[in-house]
Amino acid sequence: MGPHPAVAAIRLAVRRVLHDILNDHQTSRAYSGHQLVGGPPDRTAERPPSPLVLVACSGGADSMALASALAFEAPKLGIRAGGVTIDHGLQPGSDLRADEVVLRLRGLGLDPVESVAVTVGREGGPEAAARDARYAALDAVAERHGAAAVLLGHTRDDQAETVLLGLARGSGIRSLSGMAAVSGAGGRYRRPFLQLDRQTARKACMAQSLPVWDDPHNTDPAYTRSRLRHEGLPALEKALGKGVVEALARTAQLSRDDADALDAWASQAEASVRDAAGRLECAKLYALPPAVRRRILRRAAIEAGAPAGALFARHIEEVDRLITGWRGQGAINLPGKVVARRQGGRLVIRQG
Amino acid sequence: MGPHPAVAAIRLAVRRVLHDILNDHQTSRAYSGHQLVGGPPDRTAERPPSPLVLVACSGGADSMALASALAFEAPKLGIRAGGVTIDHGLQPGSDLRADEVVLRLRGLGLDPVESVAVTVGREGGPEAAARDARYAALDAVAERHGAAAVLLGHTRDDQAETVLLGLARGSGIRSLSGMAAVSGAGGRYRRPFLQLDRQTARKACMAQSLPVWDDPHNTDPAYTRSRLRHEGLPALEKALGKGVVEALARTAQLSRDDADALDAWASQAEASVRDAAGRLECAKLYALPPAVRRRILRRAAIEAGAPAGALFARHIEEVDRLITGWRGQGAINLPGKVVARRQGGRLVIRQG
Repeated sequence: MGPHPAVAAIRLAVRRVLHDILNDHQTSRAYSGHQLVGGPPDRTAERPPSPLVLVACSGGADSMALASALAFEAPKLGIRAGGVTIDHGLQPGSDLRADEVVLRLRGLGLDPVESVAVTVGREGGPEAAARDARYAALDAVAERHGAAAVLLGHTRDDQAETVLLGLARGSGIRSLSGMAAVSGAGGRYRRPFLQLDRQTARKACMAQSLPVWDDPHNTDPAYTRSRLRHEGLPALEKALGKGVVEALARTAQLSRDDADALDAWASQAEASVRDAAGRLECAKLYALPPAVRRRILRRAAIEAGAPAGALFARHIEEVDRLITGWRGQGAINLPGKVVARRQGGRLVIRQG
Repeated sequence: MGPHPAVAAIRLAVRRVLHDILNDHQTSRAYSGHQLVGGPPDRTAERPPSPLVLVACSGGADSMALASALAFEAPKLGIRAGGVTIDHGLQPGSDLRADEVVLRLRGLGLDPVESVAVTVGREGGPEAAARDARYAALDAVAERHGAAAVLLGHTRDDQAETVLLGLARGSGIRSLSGMAAVSGAGGRYRRPFLQLDRQTARKACMAQSLPVWDDPHNTDPAYTRSRLRHEGLPALEKALGKGVVEALARTAQLSRDDADALDAWASQAEASVRDAAGRLECAKLYALPPAVRRRILRRAAIEAGAPAGALFARHIEEVDRLITGWRGQGAINLPGKVVARRQGGRLVIRQG
């Protein structure tokens, strides 16, 4: 008898990602091998050390399911599997909780396993601050162990929520593109469950009798994501039908590809709209499609010192009107004390 | 004392659009004037007839507000203002209702005013069928009267709902781009209220003591849009904050510009990926960004006879794998009996 369908599903998802990691790992080794010249290589000396893949685990159902699948699949591919749990220190007893997760991960056969305590700041709100602290700690752990990758348990439901959060910003298709399947420096972070629903992860834990812990933040209505999960998305599903989560996840992928293509276009077009002195020529900008022109304006504003997070679509629209609706208007003030003005057919964007 | 702020807002919105219509009208007249050669033109003979602008009015608050603003602004610009109401024949007494709307529009001083009865089919579901019948009738009325434009009362709230409906299809950014401010043959349809919220239109009717009629379909939970309006969007606002409608409307505009730019790119790139015999070359397609490549594949499938409405993102992804994940797979069946296959480095998409 094979495993429970949910367990089979999580293992397949992890197996695919481990294959990708192995391919990337071998490709990067092969490239460094190009430096060796003359004579057949010494196969013994060259045998690569078995790569290490870590799972980031909160103890919740998604990441416990991920840890269990990693523990099952990694040895079959000659991969070492380890785990890390982050103690955000946001609830009393979170340190004990972290110790318990460490024990559970060791119980699955993962090694090395460690817990890392972080201090969550306040910048950008509680959710962003916790996320920043978490990724900094995961980066440090991955570096220290020389890990080839860190697996994250985000599911298709998380992706749908992320798309809706981006939609609420109204800042364009990049913010609709959700989380990438591969991200971070050198593609360190991988999200094997991005096409899998949360229910499957939960079932896989039950089928394997894995104890899971529900993060109280996930049900705390003070958190936007939690409100979205428990009220916003269910209401949207009721109005639009059960396929909403899948549709949102598909939107994320399509938007990401579209945003990448347009960024590439803008990056290429940028050189062609500058004069010999490197200044932006309004007439050439005018000739570009609005979507490309506004991306160039946004890049120029950020380059001049405007903080990307504070630069909204309405700022860029106002700068754009210096080009498309020129009637002698004055300088436009942008975040970060950046000023955009039109001078003699050139657009000047600079600080102060 | 000036008008109520809501009345001022609807009039400003309509005034701006009437100016645009006048500009377009004069430009198109000037162009036809180019055919005259020799001697100064006879100004009397050439004086253009006063253009006619129609408002499409259901009798609901949005379109009654629009009709009132058109009646007020049009004469000041030398524009004739008329109205049309469509009797969809979906409720008993809808003909009497239409007659009443005609009287109300005449009461506002609009002329000509008429009601048109349509037969709503079943194709594409009740909402799509009613829409198709409505636009066909509006087109016919506009043609018959030689109208320069037809104004539609869609508000920012309608736009937000349209974006969410598009999101539920999960078919990419074109479906997120909502309704255009200008659409139809020759830019016939104009939506002056696309940046205005529904509440403002309602207030403007109250301030002017205009009787309005609430379409029972707007509150009928059998209709997706109605469920979205009364349950989906409010829940989303509760979770994400009051700015959701505005964010969705902004997303529509940004997505539209992005989709236009990518369509232009795909259209231009398409020629460069065909061989001398006009066949799509896989190697050249492979070199394009995925967003551009998939648009070319979609166009090719539609050109081969696949109905656009039945062609989903997953179909195109499967065809795309003939290029990006080639391992000798067989032909891909697409809607409309269209088949895509890879043959000798070429992609062949055709019917049968």
